[in-house]
Amino acid sequence: MKSQIQCQQVRTVWWEEDEQGVAVCLVDQSRLPLQVNVLRLRHEHEVAEAIVSLKVRGAPAIGVTAALGMALAAQRLWREQGERMLLHEAYAALGEAKRLLGTTRPTAVNLFWALERMQDCARRASDELQVKTLRQLAQLLQLEALQIAAEDAASCKRMGELGAQFIQDGDTLLTHCNAGALATSGMGSGLAPIYIAQQQGKHVHVFVDETRPVLQGARLTAWELQQAGVPLTLITDNMAGHFMRHGGIKAVFVGADRIAANGDVANKIGTYSVAVLAHAHHIPFYVVAPFSTVDLTLASGELIPIEQRNAEEVTSIRGERVAPWDVTVANPAFDVTPHEYITALITDCGVARAPFTTSLGEMMSSKSE
Amino acid sequence: MKSQIQCQQVRTVWWEEDEQGVAVCLVDQSRLPLQVNVLRLRHEHEVAEAIVSLKVRGAPAIGVTAALGMALAAQRLWREQGERMLLHEAYAALGEAKRLLGTTRPTAVNLFWALERMQDCARRASDELQVKTLRQLAQLLQLEALQIAAEDAASCKRMGELGAQFIQDGDTLLTHCNAGALATSGMGSGLAPIYIAQQQGKHVHVFVDETRPVLQGARLTAWELQQAGVPLTLITDNMAGHFMRHGGIKAVFVGADRIAANGDVANKIGTYSVAVLAHAHHIPFYVVAPFSTVDLTLASGELIPIEQRNAEEVTSIRGERVAPWDVTVANPAFDVTPHEYITALITDCGVARAPFTTSLGEMMSSKSE
Repeated sequence: MKSQIQCQQVRTVWWEEDEQGVAVCLVDQSRLPLQVNVLRLRHEHEVAEAIVSLKVRGAPAIGVTAALGMALAAQRLWREQGERMLLHEAYAALGEAKRLLGTTRPTAVNLFWALERMQDCARRASDELQVKTLRQLAQLLQLEALQIAAEDAASCKRMGELGAQFIQDGDTLLTHCNAGALATSGMGSGLAPIYIAQQQGKHVHVFVDETRPVLQGARLTAWELQQAGVPLTLITDNMAGHFMRHGGIKAVFVGADRIAANGDVANKIGTYSVAVLAHAHHIPFYVVAPFSTVDLTLASGELIPIEQRNAEEVTSIRGERVAPWDVTVANPAFDVTPHEYITALITDCGVARAPFTTSLGEMMSSKSE
Repeated sequence: MKSQIQCQQVRTVWWEEDEQGVAVCLVDQSRLPLQVNVLRLRHEHEVAEAIVSLKVRGAPAIGVTAALGMALAAQRLWREQGERMLLHEAYAALGEAKRLLGTTRPTAVNLFWALERMQDCARRASDELQVKTLRQLAQLLQLEALQIAAEDAASCKRMGELGAQFIQDGDTLLTHCNAGALATSGMGSGLAPIYIAQQQGKHVHVFVDETRPVLQGARLTAWELQQAGVPLTLITDNMAGHFMRHGGIKAVFVGADRIAANGDVANKIGTYSVAVLAHAHHIPFYVVAPFSTVDLTLASGELIPIEQRNAEEVTSIRGERVAPWDVTVANPAFDVTPHEYITALITDCGVARAPFTTSLGEMMSSKSE
């Protein structure tokens, strides 16, 4: 089945109400790019399962999905039980939903942040707003979850606007992994400047690293750029240097999983190689991520723990074994790019440049004011 | 089926005579590492097809295979036609075999070199040796092809001995693609120094780039090192930078498909990225290739034609589609590493260092003397 070219940004996670009730809706990313299946999840158990099985991935998208899962739990309770359910019973059930959703992925910091914020909202409903009915509580939680999604989308747009200034009409760019719409509830982080540049009428062409071992570039980024009508060329990761030398690449845009106080960036494995190659070819290397990704408690990237994933991701591709049996494999999921390779960090709070410790510190100060 | 650990170097291409006649024998590298199938090819068409479909690959192995293919053609003609066939008809048929084998792969210079040498042998047979029968001609060509294979094996050993001086006991090394026994009729080029170092009792550990899109690293190098008992760690190509920074890699050894007069090297796509990364990490980068790989008619690597292969190698892995439909793909099979990234060229005629134009020129002079 060929996917239809619609030339619009894809939706990753959203809220629907229909005759059957409410639903958290997802494009099943484990089926992309060959099947575009929309899942309508009507129980928080299904939402948790979708996160565990990578039907939705990308730290901001996971946070939004979990928040919507909490809202779904409240709405479901109200629709099933009506006002027969006592409020303290509802709070207990929501606590259980939070626990369930919180055990889906161990490392995504946005997940815990979003769930805490939903719990705060429920606490405020009870303590400050004197909410008396389950219906009111469910409505408040729904509004809060939709607010989290809207803030995420606004943050993506802001990063896109700030980043688009670094893109000229006619530029050829390169990206690694998927820091796009599929990783957020908006237009993405690393890809947001590209989408905004396109909206501004600039013509761009994007080289997309396939991003072994899990192939997020080939499966997700290539697909979402195609859907949005952004011209692209898919390459294997090891072609990046060749096309930096011969393909006229003008800038690299990537996302980030965690940023240390000195500007060192943890991101998908391979990002560091791309950064070193960009540096050697005098190509600007931009990291685009919400300010929430910055962890000022870590002085440098050397302190960021690197998840080691299983060997099968390297030795098999979609179930096809491509390596000998009993072979030793290394599979770090992330690497750390030292700040000296980074031209600028584009966040929703502004653009940070070297010296990053100063630049990020100032951003934090003005944010807390 | 688990492959057996035998701790010996593998055989790639050889000549057999049995009750059915003569055969060019190959381990079908397109089936490795999970299946170890030996092909017995009895017609030059099959030999050409095996080269085109990468059942045998690696510049020296292709050269030897093509030479054996010419010998096979002559033997086949004699066995089928006997002395009914006039010698001028046989020469015409061998010219056709040469044309067929010469159009299989565009970049590997060894292919053309080996075919020219077989043609020279046939010419000498006619002009100098006054060969009068097809049987004699076929025997001469068989001896010449086997001589090419033996010289290739000796050349591998010589490169290994020269290269092993750059390896210390306990070193961690990195290699890209397969420049091993499977790429030659001996112990390989890029891997030969590693095998010799091992024979000398040095302990080494090799990081093996999987080498997308065709995965020669994962499928072939990992397998042949495993067979030879050399400890290795398989990584995806995009991990090379990370392990150069953190994995204690002491040197990189790769092969070459063609070397220009100035020392620029065409080799498997991704080699250039590895060379730039090695340079950035102050890691020596050694290219190991027989002197026949050097093409002094090309002033620089920019003149080396780069084979563009089909998109499916990138969009599908072993038949599994991993990218969206209708996606644009780039798939250059090779890239060019400029000589300034190369610490030394290790050839069977000696070790060349910068300035390579002088160094390679002197080698050529002493070779022709």
